[in-house]
Amino acid sequence: MPLVVQKYGGSSVADADSIRRVARRVAATRAAGHEVVVVVSAMGDTTDDLLDLSREITSTPSQRELDQLLTAGEQISIALLALALHEIDAPATSFTGRQAGLRTTDSFGAARITEIDPSRLRTALDEGCIAIVAGFQGWTEDEHTTTLGRGGSDTTAVALAAALDADVCEIYSDVDGMFTADPRVVPSAQRIPFLTYADATELAAHGAKILHLRAVEFAQRHGVRLHVRSSFTEQPGTWVATSRDELPAGWSNDHADETDHPTDPHDSEDHPMEEPLIQGVAHTRDQAMLTVVNIPDKPGRAASIFAALSQAVSVIDVLGQTHTARDNGLVDFSFALPADDAERARAALLELQDELEFTDVSVDEGVGKISVSGHGVRSNAEVPAQLMRALADAGITVNMFTTSEARISVVVADHQVEDAARAIHSAFGLDGATEAVVHAGTGR
Amino acid sequence: MPLVVQKYGGSSVADADSIRRVARRVAATRAAGHEVVVVVSAMGDTTDDLLDLSREITSTPSQRELDQLLTAGEQISIALLALALHEIDAPATSFTGRQAGLRTTDSFGAARITEIDPSRLRTALDEGCIAIVAGFQGWTEDEHTTTLGRGGSDTTAVALAAALDADVCEIYSDVDGMFTADPRVVPSAQRIPFLTYADATELAAHGAKILHLRAVEFAQRHGVRLHVRSSFTEQPGTWVATSRDELPAGWSNDHADETDHPTDPHDSEDHPMEEPLIQGVAHTRDQAMLTVVNIPDKPGRAASIFAALSQAVSVIDVLGQTHTARDNGLVDFSFALPADDAERARAALLELQDELEFTDVSVDEGVGKISVSGHGVRSNAEVPAQLMRALADAGITVNMFTTSEARISVVVADHQVEDAARAIHSAFGLDGATEAVVHAGTGR
Repeated sequence: MPLVVQKYGGSSVADADSIRRVARRVAATRAAGHEVVVVVSAMGDTTDDLLDLSREITSTPSQRELDQLLTAGEQISIALLALALHEIDAPATSFTGRQAGLRTTDSFGAARITEIDPSRLRTALDEGCIAIVAGFQGWTEDEHTTTLGRGGSDTTAVALAAALDADVCEIYSDVDGMFTADPRVVPSAQRIPFLTYADATELAAHGAKILHLRAVEFAQRHGVRLHVRSSFTEQPGTWVATSRDELPAGWSNDHADETDHPTDPHDSEDHPMEEPLIQGVAHTRDQAMLTVVNIPDKPGRAASIFAALSQAVSVIDVLGQTHTARDNGLVDFSFALPADDAERARAALLELQDELEFTDVSVDEGVGKISVSGHGVRSNAEVPAQLMRALADAGITVNMFTTSEARISVVVADHQVEDAARAIHSAFGLDGATEAVVHAGTGR
Repeated sequence: MPLVVQKYGGSSVADADSIRRVARRVAATRAAGHEVVVVVSAMGDTTDDLLDLSREITSTPSQRELDQLLTAGEQISIALLALALHEIDAPATSFTGRQAGLRTTDSFGAARITEIDPSRLRTALDEGCIAIVAGFQGWTEDEHTTTLGRGGSDTTAVALAAALDADVCEIYSDVDGMFTADPRVVPSAQRIPFLTYADATELAAHGAKILHLRAVEFAQRHGVRLHVRSSFTEQPGTWVATSRDELPAGWSNDHADETDHPTDPHDSEDHPMEEPLIQGVAHTRDQAMLTVVNIPDKPGRAASIFAALSQAVSVIDVLGQTHTARDNGLVDFSFALPADDAERARAALLELQDELEFTDVSVDEGVGKISVSGHGVRSNAEVPAQLMRALADAGITVNMFTTSEARISVVVADHQVEDAARAIHSAFGLDGATEAVVHAGTGR
């Protein structure tokens, strides 16, 4: 029997009505002849509410206790979803991260999955049950509760799909898939029916919040096919796999009108090989720019910095290193990071101060980031030029910018991020004729 | 180093301020040279809020999923209390029921503790840490999450005190101890400085909601000294032990004015041996009267009924069996139960219908119960007569009544329960000169 892993974000289970709606969808999938494992996030604002409570008590929480606190959120939603499934006569059992056999490292707040023992889930499925698993959480060898950090529920879903050899891992949110830009900000953004893992990685890493980078990387490594779609419609969303050949028949039949979409490289085979092909524009707000100031130029300093950051934060979103040429031989390193992680990263870096002999770590919190991803964006000088011109025309100053093989990212003032995304989307000819359908909220 | 187990109910940890207050108290106990294990309930209304959510989804919840749901409440409060202790520089680690090594049966919603492995708590204490444990919850051999049912947090505290060989188990609530009646209802009620396990059992079983029957029984079986006191004052409360000789020196020094308190049998050594001695008046509202109707008089029927009830509800609060003498040889059995348990008990009994051939199980939810406990209450006919006269004078009708060696209980209409408690307290001469101090709310 084909096995489907479905992940529903916080907005899909925000209240009793939403939970009932998800239950009907899950039950329908089972009734259509699938084994179903469901991964859920905490309900709506639960996680934020719990964080607010913790902030009332302390501004410097122990991450171990924060994990103990936050995992209660998913525990609530799995139990309620199980009850909602029982109510419509679908057999279901809920599992915490521990009960689902999800073993992690002990990096509290940013734990990484080390091992999955899916035997309990397998038994539940063999008994005809729907298995409901708390996303975002795991358990260490020493029996501490952990959270997987940002994007954790997506990662839980993909990891379980890999461990159970699922046919597909469906990531549900309130958007119809992945788009050429965030449709909430760029109404002319268009859905991308298919992405390779590499392309999805670029989009996920730099702003497409509906699918998390770690999850894509995990999916690629373990060959898990992803289907990113809306929990509010039956429309296909965005498939992510190695190639289209892996997708089920009819995966995009009802989207024939999109086959000549300019952002889908595989549909544009007459596209000149050497001309850059822009995949999409992603943006992220609430970023911080972190600068390690006045580092003497010693070998190994970058390695030390990266090592410290990888311990402190779950996703290092490195934008670039600004080498300020100065007479005194000192340089600066700058990074962009989610603002929430800035203090943690700063503290971790300051522990290196004696070793690396830098002056300070400065944090600028009022920034955001826009990334343009596609093919040939670096080898062709026209792309950055076009991007800078579009921003200049819109009156937006670029603070910092960086390029990789498949991406250009710029850091701008936080309040200009959305204008910048619209200007760039338009400048690269990505605007579609129809507006995308968006529902309220997003989950974690 | 002396070890203290402290249990704080939901009202003591209702919000961030209360949690900080409890943290200061816990830290002060540790600073005074004790090892401290703290057991906490869910914050304020959390459990009720979670139950409301479940009721929005189903009226017939699976108890396994309810347990998965409700245990999230205590998980939240232990983490927050740990954070509050860290904030005042007291080392602390939180433990779920599972992490604290609390193994139970798989009677979801009413699990019983089968085994405690306190090694993790012991290690934490040896490292100088305060151990904070989620009350009310455990874990089965098959790794399901369970709850201990009504009074579960008290039971957790006493069980841990027994397993860790604690010097005392302190049960904190918003009342200064156990009283001759509920001081919220009978303002002239007086604190009882000392109770034997047997006396405390009677009081706890029949309405003194601040200490749970199971916890007293557990304490008696394992010789755990209890100190029931208020988290709002430093006053001694009510000690419960085998005899006064076990209590620490000065346990009631600052309460010299109470030594001639008429309700304290050990302080009234010139009290005539044969005269009944009333310990206190307890009342419970929100009860249901459950009647198994028209049972043919067969051997073993009572055993079957009790067996079914003990599976279904955590505390069987049996008030009596009404044998209605009828020509047809059929009898009725009636019980009083907490109203919340009535449906569960009814369902369990109805499964016996084929076996026992009764007609129906009827439920009357609008009742409450008052119990008078003390010594010699049954052997002396004056006590029930005095009680019935007091109720008749107050215009209150008795629906059902039962006596045991040390207790008389009456069932009356729910809205008359508090009037009845005041009338009886007065009739037995228990009224004190001063009013008791009471703070808001109670925990579970």
